[in-house]
Order: sequence, then C-alpha cells, then structure tokens
Amino acid sequence: MREIFQSQLQEVQARLVEIASDSARVIEKASKAFTTSDATLADEAIAIADATGNKALALDELVIKILAKQSPVARDLRVLVSALRISASLERMGALAGHIAAIARYRFPGSAVPASLAGTFAEMGQLDVKLAKQVVELLKNTDADFAREIQAQDARVDELHRHVFDVVLGDDWKENAMFTVDVTLASRYHERFADHVVDISSKVSYLTTGEWAETE
Amino acid sequence: MREIFQSQLQEVQARLVEIASDSARVIEKASKAFTTSDATLADEAIAIADATGNKALALDELVIKILAKQSPVARDLRVLVSALRISASLERMGALAGHIAAIARYRFPGSAVPASLAGTFAEMGQLDVKLAKQVVELLKNTDADFAREIQAQDARVDELHRHVFDVVLGDDWKENAMFTVDVTLASRYHERFADHVVDISSKVSYLTTGEWAETE
Repeated sequence: MREIFQSQLQEVQARLVEIASDSARVIEKASKAFTTSDATLADEAIAIADATGNKALALDELVIKILAKQSPVARDLRVLVSALRISASLERMGALAGHIAAIARYRFPGSAVPASLAGTFAEMGQLDVKLAKQVVELLKNTDADFAREIQAQDARVDELHRHVFDVVLGDDWKENAMFTVDVTLASRYHERFADHVVDISSKVSYLTTGEWAETE
Repeated sequence: MREIFQSQLQEVQARLVEIASDSARVIEKASKAFTTSDATLADEAIAIADATGNKALALDELVIKILAKQSPVARDLRVLVSALRISASLERMGALAGHIAAIARYRFPGSAVPASLAGTFAEMGQLDVKLAKQVVELLKNTDADFAREIQAQDARVDELHRHVFDVVLGDDWKENAMFTVDVTLASRYHERFADHVVDISSKVSYLTTGEWAETE
C-alpha cells in the first residue's frame, strides 16, 4: 500500500514539474514576444497556456483520486493539499504569461512597449523566466534553502513594477493612453507571475521544514 | 462518526459564509470609496480585507484537519476540496476589493475616476456588490439554478470592463496618465472579482448536480 502511495506521489510530483516547465516556456515566449513584437511567439505562448490549464485540472483529479483511495494523514496529506495549491498557482502563472502574449499579439505589428520602458520590461521578463525555471528545479528537488533563495528574488520584480509606475506617472511620459494601458497591465501581470512563484516556494519550503503555522 | 462529520461540514459551510460576507462588505465599502473618494470607507475596506485573509487560512487548516480525521471519499471529499478552492477565491476577492480601496485611498482627496467613467464604475461596483451578496446566499443554500443565474451576470461586468478600455483608448480621452493607470487597474480588479464569483458558482453548481468532469 505504502509503495503504491509513494509511486502515486511521484506521479503527482512529475506532473507538477511538467506543468511548471510549461509555465516557464509560456513566460519565455510571452516576454520575448512582448519586448520584440513577435506575433508567432505570442501565438505559441497562448497555445501552451491553454493546454497548461487542462493539465492542471487533470492533476487535480489525480490528487482527489489519491486522497479518496489512500486517505493519507499528517505530512502525506499536506503534500497532496499543497499539490492542489501549487497546481492552481502554476495554472495562474500560465494564464498571466498568456495575457502578456495577448497584449503583444493585439498590438502587432506595433510595439506594446515604448522605448523608455524597453529595458525595464526586458529585465522583468528575464526575471520571471528565471524564477519560473527555478520553480521547475525546486519542484524536482524540494530544497528549503533553494526555496528561500527564490523568494528573495521577488523584491527586484516588485521594484521594477514600481519603476514602471514612476515612469508612467512622471513628467517625461508623453506616450498615448494605449501605451499607458498596455504597460500598466503587462507590469501587473509580470508582478503577479512572480507572486505565484513566491507562493509556490513558500509551500515547498514549509513542506520541507514542517513549519506549517506560518503559511497556513 | 457520520454525525460528527456532518457537524464539521456545517462548520466549514458557516465559515465560508462568514468569509463571503466579509468579501461582500469589503467590495461594498471599496467601490463606494472608489466612486465617492471616501478615505474612511477605504480604510475600513482594507482592514476587513486583511482580516479575511487570516480567516481563509484558518478555514483551510480546519479542512485539512477534517480530511485527516475523517478520510472522506466520493462527494464528501469533493465538498471539502471545493471548500479549499472556494476559500482561496473568497480570499482573492477580498484582496482585489482591498486593491480598489487602496487606489481610492492613494488618490484622496482627489478622485480616482474621471467624470466620463463615473457611471461605468458605479455600475461595475454595484454589480460586484450584488454578485458578492449572492455568493453569500449561494453558500448558505447551495442551489444549482441560483448558481447558474449568478454566473450569467458576469457577462455585464465583462462588457463594462471592455467599455472602460473603449473610453480610455478613444479619441475623446484627454485625462492624464494617472487616471489612465487607475481606471485600468480598477477595472481589471472589478472584472477579476466577478471572475472569482463565477468560479465559486461553478463549483457549487457542479457539487450540486454532480457533473464533475466539466469543471475539473
């Protein structure tokens, strides 16, 4: 029984890793599409994001099946409940990255980012991609120190997010409302993407250290 | 054993209703604060939203405890897993409404909404409040027809959300970037709030009808 359960947990973990890899691919294509106005990449990002949603739902069904068959308690139960939450975060990450791609698609062949913010969005995109790839590794290895290292990087994304507003609300901002709307939403999507990375890292971290009370 | 379990399920339901009531209070105060530039209401909304987050976490802990002690299967298990998801949606609704209040707070004593969009945001706010109050009733009564009725109303929120962008991106929009940023984010928050209402309604609807496959 225990052996079956362990192999089921491994299956859950493998699927989380797969969905995380998808999310990393979506944000990689989406942020590149957004900063370089590449409609093909944007379409690819949107297609993967759609598929990611279905994979997350299938994983949730698997988790419910395991809960029903194995009636786990203590740590095993928390691992499975955490898997449900991590899957929800990964799905949102895919959706948010898809939204970024959709803005690029919508403005094509024009750019969604004015020159004054090109560097900021390039860095924000690279950070989100890096964070997403680190989540893939984290879900493979579930290392508490690595989880905390990931969480610490969110501060820079928040800083860039605030910088976007400083630029948009500054005296030198002469762009039209379309640019203002696009960069406002895109910046928000990048920031929320990183928030979900932090949420996932917290869950893995506390699963590993056993300090539940602080997150839940 | 079954009796204890039923009373535990009732406790979960009562807590969901309480958190939903909080979310309804937050959006009611927040949307009024946003359209009338009322800093006191905004502060009240933000305070309730913060408390709502903790209540949702406490509920999640209760659900995990019940899962561990009762090892439910079939419908009982799905009710509890759904409770975790509904609690997550209610928490996000509180947070989103809190964000709307924060914009009002930040712009006080000025307005966050220009005259040309005052009516749109008034209607969008009223709809979100109505939807939130209906979620409270839905969680009390879990009626599938009512759940579908709630879901149908989301279309109007989406329409108003698109209208905000039509106005902001139209030729007559002469407001500064601050207004553009504020209405872009506020509209997004209102729309996401209603999305979560739809998600909750879908869960209740399918819990009632037993048609799992379509949502999960």
